[in-house]
Amino acid sequence: MTRQLIKYVLKSDAIDQTTTISGWIRTRRDSKGGFSFLEINDGSCLNNIQVIANNTLDNYEDGVKKLHPGASVTVTGQLVKSAGGKQSVEIIADTVEICGFCEPSDYPLQKSRVSLEKLRQVAHLRPRTNAIGAVMRVRNALAFATHKFFQEQDFLYVNTPIITANDCEGAGEMFQVTTLPVGKTDEKQLDYAKDFFAKQTSLTVSGQLEGEAYACALSNIYTFGPTFRAENSNTSRHLAEFWMIEPEIAFADINTISDVAESYVKYIFKYVLDHCPDEVELFNKFIDTSLLEKLTNVVDNDFIRITYTEAIDILLKTKKKFEFEVSWGCDLQSEHERYLAEEHFNAPVILSDYPKSIKAFYMRANEDGKTVAAIDVLFPGVGEMIGGAQREERFDVLKERMEESGLDPEAYWWYLDLRRFGTVPHGGFGLGFERAVQFCTGMTNIRDVIPFPRSVKHCEF
Amino acid sequence: MTRQLIKYVLKSDAIDQTTTISGWIRTRRDSKGGFSFLEINDGSCLNNIQVIANNTLDNYEDGVKKLHPGASVTVTGQLVKSAGGKQSVEIIADTVEICGFCEPSDYPLQKSRVSLEKLRQVAHLRPRTNAIGAVMRVRNALAFATHKFFQEQDFLYVNTPIITANDCEGAGEMFQVTTLPVGKTDEKQLDYAKDFFAKQTSLTVSGQLEGEAYACALSNIYTFGPTFRAENSNTSRHLAEFWMIEPEIAFADINTISDVAESYVKYIFKYVLDHCPDEVELFNKFIDTSLLEKLTNVVDNDFIRITYTEAIDILLKTKKKFEFEVSWGCDLQSEHERYLAEEHFNAPVILSDYPKSIKAFYMRANEDGKTVAAIDVLFPGVGEMIGGAQREERFDVLKERMEESGLDPEAYWWYLDLRRFGTVPHGGFGLGFERAVQFCTGMTNIRDVIPFPRSVKHCEF
Repeated sequence: MTRQLIKYVLKSDAIDQTTTISGWIRTRRDSKGGFSFLEINDGSCLNNIQVIANNTLDNYEDGVKKLHPGASVTVTGQLVKSAGGKQSVEIIADTVEICGFCEPSDYPLQKSRVSLEKLRQVAHLRPRTNAIGAVMRVRNALAFATHKFFQEQDFLYVNTPIITANDCEGAGEMFQVTTLPVGKTDEKQLDYAKDFFAKQTSLTVSGQLEGEAYACALSNIYTFGPTFRAENSNTSRHLAEFWMIEPEIAFADINTISDVAESYVKYIFKYVLDHCPDEVELFNKFIDTSLLEKLTNVVDNDFIRITYTEAIDILLKTKKKFEFEVSWGCDLQSEHERYLAEEHFNAPVILSDYPKSIKAFYMRANEDGKTVAAIDVLFPGVGEMIGGAQREERFDVLKERMEESGLDPEAYWWYLDLRRFGTVPHGGFGLGFERAVQFCTGMTNIRDVIPFPRSVKHCEF
Repeated sequence: MTRQLIKYVLKSDAIDQTTTISGWIRTRRDSKGGFSFLEINDGSCLNNIQVIANNTLDNYEDGVKKLHPGASVTVTGQLVKSAGGKQSVEIIADTVEICGFCEPSDYPLQKSRVSLEKLRQVAHLRPRTNAIGAVMRVRNALAFATHKFFQEQDFLYVNTPIITANDCEGAGEMFQVTTLPVGKTDEKQLDYAKDFFAKQTSLTVSGQLEGEAYACALSNIYTFGPTFRAENSNTSRHLAEFWMIEPEIAFADINTISDVAESYVKYIFKYVLDHCPDEVELFNKFIDTSLLEKLTNVVDNDFIRITYTEAIDILLKTKKKFEFEVSWGCDLQSEHERYLAEEHFNAPVILSDYPKSIKAFYMRANEDGKTVAAIDVLFPGVGEMIGGAQREERFDVLKERMEESGLDPEAYWWYLDLRRFGTVPHGGFGLGFERAVQFCTGMTNIRDVIPFPRSVKHCEF
């Protein structure tokens, strides 16, 4: 008989019918009445199904009574209304087929509560826990909602390259990709002509530039892929490998870009509220008791939109003391961003029109000569989750900004071509996917929202 | 007024109403009657919309008459029924706002037909052509259909790591990822403790092993991400960077895995037929006149399922001469695969139960002691597009296979853990995404179905 996923069985009304489920034992409780209760989970939902295994089963003594947490079984039996359990139905087993035992003395998840830190050391097993299983279902929902949103809005999904010879922002620590020997550079002998790509190559920090090329042909595109930073930041906020979503829109100004960013975030958060209510409830109970409120707040309210200059005014006027002093032209620190989003507005804030000097060369210069059409979207709790901009579409202005920034326009010939041949106003933004998962789960350490985190000195599994 | 995408305008029945579109000029034709016809494309669909620009427009002489292919415009005007054009509607312009001119002497796409080979040199502009634009819309449809299929089947999307310290198959050329100097190895000084991850790391060749960990917790998962091969294969069939879809299913045997593979491929191909009819028609006309037939054939018919042993019998019995001789135990060459899929069956073929000696260590040993529960799915025209297997879930057998294959079980401790703690029968397959795009477009060179191809000596843009 074909197995059914537990998430469907728990909602099933096929009472008295024969049902087959498979999964992993979460707990076993032996009753004095001559039967055992098995709580079984298959990862399809947060909840377990309860199975009643009678001592009349052939393998009761040799099998069922040796089932410990982590063991895997396939159970066929009669679906009945539950008398006392947390769930409305349970299964009275006709057969309990044991796939694999699990020795309690060795199993790292034997104890009911293992710290998130310890779970990172068993990242291959941690999706079997309530917390990480739930994170991964939320992550899945956010990923699919992302595709659904952009497809419904007529954006085309584009795979920008991972290995690149560009350095998108003229800055940022990059990983080198090579087939040459590693360890030492001999300047005289170093010959990239002998490397796989016959030039020096790295892992991408952003697909934006290539995304622009596609938007300047297909109108609306988005990427969703891995990006990399070789930054020596051993914090709970940084990963060396993380996923980004980067939409790019042709014939659009900074207002359209802000509108898309706002609708997108609301859409994916609402999708999580609608599709993962049990998971959100779990996190709201055990991880962050204000989570549900925060999520609902984002979905239901307009994002605040102010300029950088207005934000500086607010920060200068508050009595709050900051570690870093504020003045027009400074880069906002996370304490400033948090103050704005959490304390002053208690809402997501779209900050726009940043000083030219602190932003990247490709951002469109405003008429004032001092600012660029850039946005950052700040969220209570996680800070900056989205950065975007209208791109400089004027050939001469862009070339000048490149030169000012110490970049060689020759190296960006193709990027300049987009302005040479039928240039259009366009722009987009990037959303750090893990930050979004953090926001929807309340998880404070970014390493707990990606299956196998990569960071300084950590590349296990 | 907000712009509308041309794909909607062409189907619109808002005759006589004011409409705004934006896009790039494909052609301009000046009539003696004192007006010009502009064919405009915005990448939202294959077809152009025709705009009639009258010489009464303010910028007719200085603007409209200087519009060449590639120039970008926003047009507002009245939507009218088309008299003679290919489309049913056209726009009589009230205004033609010029975003960017395009100098014909410099523009690489000026000529109506540019070879696919030449287009690869302007990969940043080629999505503006009919052929590559259409390929990318089909690619987008295949990607979204992939997510839709697996979500509907309750598979969770999992991002397996890109940077890895494993070598999935104990073989395969890998790119090294490093922050150490490059060029030379000094054995004495080479100290990976100083590298970013404090060990030697590479770009992944497959997310399968990590996918298994997630399937052995969440039941059904799939990946969709980039994978890499540093193979010196300068052919039309190989890329150094390509995208793979790798589902993994718990509590499943090789038959279930074959069933999922067959339904999946049928689903995504049908999605393309339903959502990209114009694109398929284009390719069927200009690239491969049997394309539509091939696609329909896959969608409508059962895949042939035979064992490797049966395939060898067929190949031994045929009168066809092969370059490579056939005998039981040999690895099938692409000429053999093509013969089976194209000539003998003229249908997709699922070949199963390959000799153990030519397959990877993780594939489940069959009872006969000679074969493993592996499948390859062969397609007419592209050959192997899917490879899969039931995984060896028996701890002792797997460990033995590792040792036989010269792998250190210690290095795979976590992979063995999946068999130590509640092991389950499971398996999955990998589909080379670009191969699927090739099949749906008829494009013979794999570099024409990915936005920015990476291959030996090629890492431009």
